[in-house]
Amino acid sequence: MTMVGSAISTTGHQGGNQRGPEKLLIVDCDIHEGTRSQKDLYPYLPQVYRDQIEDFGISFGGLTYPSIAKGATRHDLWRDEKTHPGTDVELVREFFDANGIDYGVLTGGPYGAVAHPDADFCAAYCRAFNEWEVDTWISADERFRGSIHIAPQDPMLAVQEIERLGTHPKIVQVMLPAGARFPYGNRFYHPIWEAAETLGLVICVHPSAEGAGINSPPTAAGYCTYYPEMRAAWAQIAQAHLASLIYEGVFAKFPRLKFLFIEHDTFWVPGLLWRMDADWKGLRFRVPWVEEKPSDYVLRNVRFGSQPIPEPPNPEDLLTHLKWMHADQTMVYCSDYPHWDMDLPTKILSGVSPELKRRIFGENARELYRLL
Amino acid sequence: MTMVGSAISTTGHQGGNQRGPEKLLIVDCDIHEGTRSQKDLYPYLPQVYRDQIEDFGISFGGLTYPSIAKGATRHDLWRDEKTHPGTDVELVREFFDANGIDYGVLTGGPYGAVAHPDADFCAAYCRAFNEWEVDTWISADERFRGSIHIAPQDPMLAVQEIERLGTHPKIVQVMLPAGARFPYGNRFYHPIWEAAETLGLVICVHPSAEGAGINSPPTAAGYCTYYPEMRAAWAQIAQAHLASLIYEGVFAKFPRLKFLFIEHDTFWVPGLLWRMDADWKGLRFRVPWVEEKPSDYVLRNVRFGSQPIPEPPNPEDLLTHLKWMHADQTMVYCSDYPHWDMDLPTKILSGVSPELKRRIFGENARELYRLL
Repeated sequence: MTMVGSAISTTGHQGGNQRGPEKLLIVDCDIHEGTRSQKDLYPYLPQVYRDQIEDFGISFGGLTYPSIAKGATRHDLWRDEKTHPGTDVELVREFFDANGIDYGVLTGGPYGAVAHPDADFCAAYCRAFNEWEVDTWISADERFRGSIHIAPQDPMLAVQEIERLGTHPKIVQVMLPAGARFPYGNRFYHPIWEAAETLGLVICVHPSAEGAGINSPPTAAGYCTYYPEMRAAWAQIAQAHLASLIYEGVFAKFPRLKFLFIEHDTFWVPGLLWRMDADWKGLRFRVPWVEEKPSDYVLRNVRFGSQPIPEPPNPEDLLTHLKWMHADQTMVYCSDYPHWDMDLPTKILSGVSPELKRRIFGENARELYRLL
Repeated sequence: MTMVGSAISTTGHQGGNQRGPEKLLIVDCDIHEGTRSQKDLYPYLPQVYRDQIEDFGISFGGLTYPSIAKGATRHDLWRDEKTHPGTDVELVREFFDANGIDYGVLTGGPYGAVAHPDADFCAAYCRAFNEWEVDTWISADERFRGSIHIAPQDPMLAVQEIERLGTHPKIVQVMLPAGARFPYGNRFYHPIWEAAETLGLVICVHPSAEGAGINSPPTAAGYCTYYPEMRAAWAQIAQAHLASLIYEGVFAKFPRLKFLFIEHDTFWVPGLLWRMDADWKGLRFRVPWVEEKPSDYVLRNVRFGSQPIPEPPNPEDLLTHLKWMHADQTMVYCSDYPHWDMDLPTKILSGVSPELKRRIFGENARELYRLL
């Protein structure tokens, strides 16, 4: 986390797309935009679902793990008492200007829609959010890039939405919460992965909806109790999805597919690769479709968001960690704007070499999303 | 994993308890003893449960994730086609002799008994196993130390069994599989922790029964498919239990309680402590009963088994990892005899300093179990 103090940096980077030769390219892969009110989506929703929400609430079934008041935001980012900093295009543009962010990927989103049993409702809700995102946000600034939110309960409906929006020039990815009924290697999801690969869209996984509605409990030991436990669980669920993707052979089947895990921490990445590579040597006869060693698939097909950046007691150990996880290839910068624990580009990775900064803050994401 | 080759080391260590000044004390904290047949337990079981097992099988509801044939053992350890190396006291004694093991903690066990809905049946089954363990194993060799297996479905029945056996001079711990309905910080389990603390017994958690019977799915994303995924999941479930123990305040409530996680890998330990310590600074107002920083509780109250030892591509990185996890205080040696991926004392930690070897192979466990 970057602690509060200078809410918006005004030093160190030039804003906008006009970069001189010394300007560090900054791609922020986690900007949370949202509606001011549920009603913002009504013009995009069928009447039956507008009535449903009016009568019964949105009712996606999420657990409440209280964190920081005012929607877990940095309070100093609010323009006024009513203007949540994730709901105001101008505030986000100012944030980009002040921090020299050249591109920002909007991650939303309607995450709870993965947890409700009614697939038609959830698909309609995601579609409405996507339409609103295109109209309200993506068109508002050159620097914005968008995500397609989907409800995976019905993979073929999800594929329809991906195909409907996936050729939009500013749409770069498909967004899924980490909370799930099955680990993401499961063949249930393969039609979704196939559509994303075909259209060159990244699959981005972000914590949310763990243990909500019809999803599995948020840890492998059942329901946790407090928000700090859930923060620790976010790392666990990414480990589960990644092991599943590897061993179910997703990257052997879809070799051009890219997965991006954001906000799951990264402390576990090196060691999980050590474990999977060692196990693969002895156990590949059980999963013969995994033709290459797991870390090779990860280096080619998987990326990880920087936020929250690990905070070892000896800050130099972070450099060792980044080397172990091949951060020069695998890590992309995320601010997590506007949340309380967001990481400003001027506040993290200060001890990192200029070349590694160049990779993490911009180049890895530029290649991932094929920007510029 | 230590690969097969020299099944039983005959070099490097002197067997038995007669240690000279140069003999490295070796305490093996994971020796799996088991019955040759379910019928071995019949003399200790009420007739109703003998009949039940005869008619319906043991039926604990475990998933099958096939690994290595012949019960996931090292095939070279079998004396003959019929003698499973975990079922023969003499084979285990020979293993101790050949590898200079001074003490070995018997870990069994009847792990599936945590996953069946009938608490009385499971408590009776655990009690039968414990009785058989005392009669058949613990009395058979000076070097053996035993575990109390419990069924946590009814915590007060579990407490009864702990109190019945916990003063036996060679019983050193209470054993629980990692598979659970709730993370182990949950107050449901506190009577068990209290009894263990009072009697000075370690709580040892070992992978098993994840997703079995009434337990939660084995990952935070649901049921995984293959054995290598489950191996990766073992690390996740320990992370969930540890975060829960910290944030539910178990070590603030029971300051002398010791938890030992074995066979959960350790790659995740340093980074999870970094995360929890950083989060605690900003979020302790949500969990004010966590009075000290999480890593302080871990250093005092939690230990980790060495097996499977991390295998980074650059072996020297293991030394960095061990430093980061404070292995000089937190790691105890485990062989996992007789399983296919067991770690012989002569085959792991070869690059480690003599002092750190002394801590990991013997001293940390000696202090934990108050041996000698």
